[in-house]
Amino acid sequence: MHYLDHAATTPLVPEAREAMLGVFDDNFGNPSSVHAAGRAARETVEVARERVAQAVGGGPSEIVFTGGGTEADNLAIKGAAYKLRGNGNHVIVSSFEHHAVLEAAEWLEHQGYELTRVPVTSDGVVEPAALAEAVRHSTVLVSVMTVNNEIGTIQDIAGIVSAIKAANPNTLVHSDAVQALGKIPVDVGAWGVDLASFSAHKLGGPKGVGALFVRTGVPVEAILHGGGHERGLRSGTLNVAGISGFGAAAEVAAKEVYGESERLLPLREKLLDGIRDIVPDVVVNGRLENRVAHNLNVCIPGAEGETLLLLLDQAGIACSSGSACQSGALDPSHVLLAIGVARDLAEGSLRFSMGRTTTVSDVDAVLAALPDVVSRARRAA
Amino acid sequence: MHYLDHAATTPLVPEAREAMLGVFDDNFGNPSSVHAAGRAARETVEVARERVAQAVGGGPSEIVFTGGGTEADNLAIKGAAYKLRGNGNHVIVSSFEHHAVLEAAEWLEHQGYELTRVPVTSDGVVEPAALAEAVRHSTVLVSVMTVNNEIGTIQDIAGIVSAIKAANPNTLVHSDAVQALGKIPVDVGAWGVDLASFSAHKLGGPKGVGALFVRTGVPVEAILHGGGHERGLRSGTLNVAGISGFGAAAEVAAKEVYGESERLLPLREKLLDGIRDIVPDVVVNGRLENRVAHNLNVCIPGAEGETLLLLLDQAGIACSSGSACQSGALDPSHVLLAIGVARDLAEGSLRFSMGRTTTVSDVDAVLAALPDVVSRARRAA
Repeated sequence: MHYLDHAATTPLVPEAREAMLGVFDDNFGNPSSVHAAGRAARETVEVARERVAQAVGGGPSEIVFTGGGTEADNLAIKGAAYKLRGNGNHVIVSSFEHHAVLEAAEWLEHQGYELTRVPVTSDGVVEPAALAEAVRHSTVLVSVMTVNNEIGTIQDIAGIVSAIKAANPNTLVHSDAVQALGKIPVDVGAWGVDLASFSAHKLGGPKGVGALFVRTGVPVEAILHGGGHERGLRSGTLNVAGISGFGAAAEVAAKEVYGESERLLPLREKLLDGIRDIVPDVVVNGRLENRVAHNLNVCIPGAEGETLLLLLDQAGIACSSGSACQSGALDPSHVLLAIGVARDLAEGSLRFSMGRTTTVSDVDAVLAALPDVVSRARRAA
Repeated sequence: MHYLDHAATTPLVPEAREAMLGVFDDNFGNPSSVHAAGRAARETVEVARERVAQAVGGGPSEIVFTGGGTEADNLAIKGAAYKLRGNGNHVIVSSFEHHAVLEAAEWLEHQGYELTRVPVTSDGVVEPAALAEAVRHSTVLVSVMTVNNEIGTIQDIAGIVSAIKAANPNTLVHSDAVQALGKIPVDVGAWGVDLASFSAHKLGGPKGVGALFVRTGVPVEAILHGGGHERGLRSGTLNVAGISGFGAAAEVAAKEVYGESERLLPLREKLLDGIRDIVPDVVVNGRLENRVAHNLNVCIPGAEGETLLLLLDQAGIACSSGSACQSGALDPSHVLLAIGVARDLAEGSLRFSMGRTTTVSDVDAVLAALPDVVSRARRAA
């Protein structure tokens, strides 16, 4: 199989696998227990917390482990909005956020909050000035993703934070950085964001674990209540193995970020050049500059994404149309619509996303299969 | 180490370990993806869903996978109360529920719901009639745990459901059955509960995965929003490895439930007889009949639980005072206070909880260490 869907999920890196096996076999305690088995588990969690903190540029006490990126987004959006409801009831998101941010914000809207969706440019850029203009006295939170999950464009988070704080210093800024860690250098400290979400399985860690960076002093209310774990911000027995795997993967991802980008960029160029030879009217979605090297998102005019996917799958190639994150959805991508792609064109989109296991043979396989796949998909449409 | 803290967490059963490794090594896809890697992951999730459903006596379409027991409790309590707010705003819990239920219900109270805490008897029993008396026209939900996590007493959930439904057929009944699965035969279908929570790591599965049984047609609102996974009830990429490990462990636990209880009961009797010889004034918390065989919870008058734990730990014995579920708490157990144990006595509690790896040598080790531990703890107090 030629797996070009690393933005959907990634294989475990060996370091994460080893860390998890170590927990399974020799460290099964509950980190809340007082005895030796509990202390060993707690130490493992704290080592992982330091690794994740180091990888994202925060302090260990600023990392809250969650059950995944979606939970981290929900905790940030709802938790901050709840906690700050005395300050105001206005929330801002960009129009091409991940569903975990959009739906959490829309849920707040149902609870009586006001929600503004700031448009993005056709390049796939959220303009700091557009966000700042939308900020009001009552704006408690703005959420803009660091790297878009479908088209891979990178936002100027530091510039966005500055613009928002200039408009209202009390407004919190959250960034869903799930698709950033391991793809670009991440430094939440330097960026100045108050909250940032991460997910292990996008960077060689296991599914079912994520983290929310919560800057020291930033007020957030828990959304899962119980035993008061994670300093009261996230109750529930800690997933020691998953967290340990996340820590190991985050360390690897942060170390390899420059090298991997450099290695993958020429592969993406080869892929795009090849596609352009086969499909001269191909449309690239979002700008190519300031985009993660791992991502290529294109529309094939006159073909349906679903058909393209199935035919590529038959040829042993795994990729996406839209994202895998919206379970079973067949609607055209809200991201492509948000950057102004016409509805019928958006239906013919393909996302190729590369990663640590990607080699030139994967690109060659796509280019070998594509002429037949595209002509069959166009005939079917 | 002599590990007598299986109610806090359990070692992985080999079947769960193998299932998880199979996912890590050969099945890393995202179950929401359309391609072959996604389909393989989806199939693995559905096999596990059938196994968990089978183990708990529900249908596969009635199982919603979550990030653990705490999330399942939160989803049940908040999700049902939100969804039914048109019907009423009254919620009932027993006074010795797990913190995940109590705190979720108290959070609803802060949102304007009315909350009734129904007392339990000194035996550790929640009386169906006492619950039925508390039910009002506006009662949308009652939550009573199947097996108490600290004292192991088993509730008559079928009787509780009947009494509540007779008082108000529209009232939903939830049971936190986290400590029941693998300890007693579980049959949510026969019991008639609308909602029931489960956690993998209490029965030989991994930490970070749980499930909520949601009877077909029972209305629940999601608490984590995003891509709409799990039929819209729980967004977030499915933890394929953890879910697969959960399925394998649930199958083993359901198969072994009778044999394990029979095997452990004489061990508990030996443990209690031995403790009574060493500490003649020992107090057993909760009744011994209708209690899971795995649990013994006692108070040692004149000693502090914390000191007892530390001294036992030094002797290589792992057990609990209260539960491990309330992170770092030093207050006397709310469960013991709820069954009427005096505060100073409750501070000297010890929970021994046995499991699959427990043998008579563990019991012997406790009894060998206890004379010295108790006399030192009493001197320290």
